[in-house]
Amino acid sequence: MVYVAGQIPRKPDGGMYTGRVPGQVTVEQAREAARACGVAILAQLEAAGGLEKVEQIAQVIGFVNCEDGFGEQPEVINGCSDLLVEVLGEAGRHSRAALGTNSLPRNVTVEIAAVAVVRS
Amino acid sequence: MVYVAGQIPRKPDGGMYTGRVPGQVTVEQAREAARACGVAILAQLEAAGGLEKVEQIAQVIGFVNCEDGFGEQPEVINGCSDLLVEVLGEAGRHSRAALGTNSLPRNVTVEIAAVAVVRS
Amino acid sequence: MVYVAGQIPRKPDGGMYTGRVPGQVTVEQAREAARACGVAILAQLEAAGGLEKVEQIAQVIGFVNCEDGFGEQPEVINGCSDLLVEVLGEAGRHSRAALGTNSLPRNVTVEIAAVAVVRS
Repeated sequence: MVYVAGQIPRKPDGGMYTGRVPGQVTVEQAREAARACGVAILAQLEAAGGLEKVEQIAQVIGFVNCEDGFGEQPEVINGCSDLLVEVLGEAGRHSRAALGTNSLPRNVTVEIAAVAVVRS
Repeated sequence: MVYVAGQIPRKPDGGMYTGRVPGQVTVEQAREAARACGVAILAQLEAAGGLEKVEQIAQVIGFVNCEDGFGEQPEVINGCSDLLVEVLGEAGRHSRAALGTNSLPRNVTVEIAAVAVVRS
Repeated sequence: MVYVAGQIPRKPDGGMYTGRVPGQVTVEQAREAARACGVAILAQLEAAGGLEKVEQIAQVIGFVNCEDGFGEQPEVINGCSDLLVEVLGEAGRHSRAALGTNSLPRNVTVEIAAVAVVRS
């Protein structure tokens, strides 16, 4: 069982996706941020032994930095979930919780943690 | 180990329990919503192999959609916790985190995820 | 695998650390609250079989009761993380998610849950 720490969304230029949905950031931009968190999760799993050893992503917990009453967290976190399945196929399918929050570290738009079953 | 995805509270009529505590929804109504999440968790475990194979509910994480400063998340999430013990007895006892949030998918009142140890 | 429930921060006098960061509570005070949560996590692990049986803290999930836009959750949760490493050494190192929330039970400042691998 590999526990992947909460990943924050880095841009290719080294910056981060920041700001709250939907006032400062659109759902589409936030989905892109969630996909960047997915890339970071895959990088962690690669470093922890290699993606080919991942038997199953067991759990994904995603938090969206958003305004009160925002309700499209699933659409945002799909950016990460879809990537995991694209890359890992069936092993990338997972149970998930998509949640909102009023604040995240460094005001990033999305933070996502994961648990994976990995062959030793 | 079975990871149950974050469950949202469905009403018998197919609708969902929505709104924030305590302005739009009372603690008692939210507890009912949490119980509905518990029903959904049990349905997931039944589908995943059968309730009779559940050795222990290891963890419950519950989020209450609430206003700033609301502090009765434990009373709300008890709606789920009490149901798990009613149905599963000792196997239904669990460690728990009860948390608040400023928003949840579709503006539902409660979302609850769980981890269970299940005999194969 | 031992799942430690969400721990709230108790003061030596029996009271609790309450209030939101940064308006009512400073980052330094909140870090102290997170350390108190760490003490409670260690007490739970001691009660669950003894600290000497802890092979690894696998995961820490910490929530900081804070105002919209606050971004120093990692600095706060370090109060708990640093303590776990001080007491358990390498076994205390963990993957972590540090998150914000608009409300916690009884208005406590921090709530932290953990998962540990323990020898039976």
